[in-house]
Order: sequence, then C-alpha cells, then structure tokens
Amino acid sequence: MARQERAIRTRRVILEAAGAVFDEHGYTATTISMVLERAEVTKGALYFHFPSKESLAQAVLDVQIPLGAVPPQPCKLQELVDVTFVFGRRLLHNSLLKGSVRLAVDQCAPPGVDHSGPFRQWADHLVVVLEQARDQGELLPTVEPRQTVELLVGAFAGVQLMSRALTDRADLAERISVLWGHLLPSIAVPGVLTGIDRDPDRGLRVLAAIGESDDEQADLDLFCR
Amino acid sequence: MARQERAIRTRRVILEAAGAVFDEHGYTATTISMVLERAEVTKGALYFHFPSKESLAQAVLDVQIPLGAVPPQPCKLQELVDVTFVFGRRLLHNSLLKGSVRLAVDQCAPPGVDHSGPFRQWADHLVVVLEQARDQGELLPTVEPRQTVELLVGAFAGVQLMSRALTDRADLAERISVLWGHLLPSIAVPGVLTGIDRDPDRGLRVLAAIGESDDEQADLDLFCR
Repeated sequence: MARQERAIRTRRVILEAAGAVFDEHGYTATTISMVLERAEVTKGALYFHFPSKESLAQAVLDVQIPLGAVPPQPCKLQELVDVTFVFGRRLLHNSLLKGSVRLAVDQCAPPGVDHSGPFRQWADHLVVVLEQARDQGELLPTVEPRQTVELLVGAFAGVQLMSRALTDRADLAERISVLWGHLLPSIAVPGVLTGIDRDPDRGLRVLAAIGESDDEQADLDLFCR
Repeated sequence: MARQERAIRTRRVILEAAGAVFDEHGYTATTISMVLERAEVTKGALYFHFPSKESLAQAVLDVQIPLGAVPPQPCKLQELVDVTFVFGRRLLHNSLLKGSVRLAVDQCAPPGVDHSGPFRQWADHLVVVLEQARDQGELLPTVEPRQTVELLVGAFAGVQLMSRALTDRADLAERISVLWGHLLPSIAVPGVLTGIDRDPDRGLRVLAAIGESDDEQADLDLFCR
C-alpha cells in the first residue's frame, strides 16, 4: 500500500473511532487515550493527523455535509426531502455521524471548536437546492429560500434529538415524514406537493437504489483525503 | 420567617444556582462544590434538599412546563403560539430555564437522570391545548393533535438550539415566528389562520400584559414547594 494511501486509511480509522467515542461520552469526557484505544493506532499517528482534541472534534464536526449526499432528482424539493431521509437513515448506523451530530448539539464544545459550523454549512448547502427548486417553479411565491432552509435545519436538528431521547432514533424516519407533512404545504405549489414521496421508508429506498446497504458505512474516502 | 418558608427559599436558591452552573458547564463538568459556591448555602442545606447531583439535575429538568405558563386565550391555537414565544423570551434571561434546556438537549445525562422527560412532559401538556383547539373547530380535519404537538416540541427544541449556536438566542423570536409561519397553514382553518398573532415581539407583549418584565425571573414559588 502506498504511503499516502496508508495515511488516508489511518486518518479515517482515527476519525471513525473519535466519532464513536464523542458519541458515547461527549466532548468533555472524551480523552485522546480513549480514541487511541478504540482506533488501535499509535499516539504518533494520531498526533500526526490531529494535533489536539479540539482539531479532532473539528474534523468530526466537518463530516456531515458529505454524508447527506443523495442522487440528484428532477424535482429539487424531492431531492431536499431525500437529503433528510438519507441523513436520518445513515444516522442510525454511522458512529462518526452520530458523534458529529452530538458535538453540534451539545453545548460542551470549548472556545477552540466551532460547533455551530454544521448549522451554517447545512444551510449554505441546502439553500442552493431550494433556489433550484424556486427557479423550476416548484415553490410558492411566499417562500424565502434562506429562511425556509434555516428553519428546516433547525427543526431537523430538534426532531432527531427528540427521536434519540425517546426511542434511540427508532422512530426518526416517521418523525421526518411528519415534519415534511407539516412543512411542504407552506413551501410547494399544489402540483408539486402531491408528487413528493415522503414515506418513512424513502431513505431506505434511495440508499438501496445507489447500492448502499444499512450495514455499510457510507464511503468516507471522499472527505478524508 | 417561618421554618418552612425558609426551606422553600433555600431550595429555590439552590435550584437557580444549579441551573446556572449546568447551563455554563454541562452535566459532566458540574460539581456539587460549584453549585454550593454559587448558591452560597451550606453543604448540609444542599444535601437536605438534593441528596445527589442526579437529583439536582432531575429537579432542574422538571422546571420547564411551569415556565411556559401563559394567560388563557379564546383562540387555543393562539395560546399554543404564545407558549412558544413566552418560553423563548424567558429562555433569554432565566438561567434556571437555560440550564434545564441544556440538560434536556445534551446527551451527557447519566442513567439515573431522565433527560427525555421535558420532551414527554411538553407533548403531554400541549396536546391538551391542541385538542381544545380541535374541539373549537380551529384545526384542519387532517390534523392529528399528538403528532402535530410532538413535531412542534421537537422542532422548537432544534430551532432554539440553532439560535443559541448562531446568535446566542438573539434571533430566537424571529425563528419562532418563521416556524409558525411554516406550520400554521398545515394546522389552522383559514378563518383562524389569519387572526393568529405570530409577530416576533408577541412574547414580550404577552409578558408585559401580565406585568412580567425581562429583568424579573418568573415566579418559581409555584413549583419549588
């Protein structure tokens, strides 16, 4: 294995271990030793990639957007809906993503870590999709894309939080479906509204269509380089 | 001062101190010593009321519903809207409430503390209001009160979280207004929809009408007994 490839793989192993430990223990209680033990790498390897616990947390926080990637759809509102279902589905199985979400949601992060990053990144990322939807005539004229997208990001954060607190996210897909059932009538023109698939199993079907099973982790190579 | 009255006041002082410390440091990093120092009470007094850090956290978690109390309204949907604006407003100034919300949202709580309690309590409390709205003919026939209320509780949790992360809650009232702007068309019959006040300053006006200024803490005596 080439040297660079090995470094990429090591970085990925460390990130996944850190995500799992942050998810289980939160920022404050997590130590570098716990991550080392989980990752089974040397101290030198870890510090080569991440000079501090803060930098490790920051890297874990920055993985969310790639893990919401979905196949493009002709209907851009459907694509937006798909992002939430796919992200919700991956959140069930992907420890790195769980850890990332916990770091964003917990207030524990120290000054050196920007735990508000995911909120901003999601809004910046999804507003593009909603603006495409607007340009295609899918939106009611009252919709202001930035406002609607920020509401979606905030509401989704809370819905997944409540689902985790009450059912360890077992009912997350149902709750996402209810969220869209309440939001779409204020967003979509009637002709588009009726065609949007917001069944709770939407995420499962989108992932199956791209050949990603539940057991698999989404490919992290994309953003670990 | 009678003995019982003194005990009530001491319990309240301890709770407020604990809320502030939990808000600043989170569950894990909070110690009983930090609460003692903030509350300026004796160790004996604290342990008389709260035998453990867990019991202190549980008591802080249990204060939320009373702090969402609002004057009754002829339109029950307006009353529901008012709860969110008033709660959001109090959240700006009330450290006990901030601490309570942080404990509910953080994953840090140990097995002995039920941090999902506020989610359930809010849903149980608000579903009654929404059922009254239904009985008065304010709701679209498609609305299932329990589902809608659970969505509202989850979405509100996330909206306040995002507002805290991005602006230290300075824009919370605007975000609550946007939330209702998106939810109400799926909930209210048209005749009711147009009459509902969801201006960002609604919370301020409701509180002014009952003579509660921003500087004042809501009266905690009700639930500290």
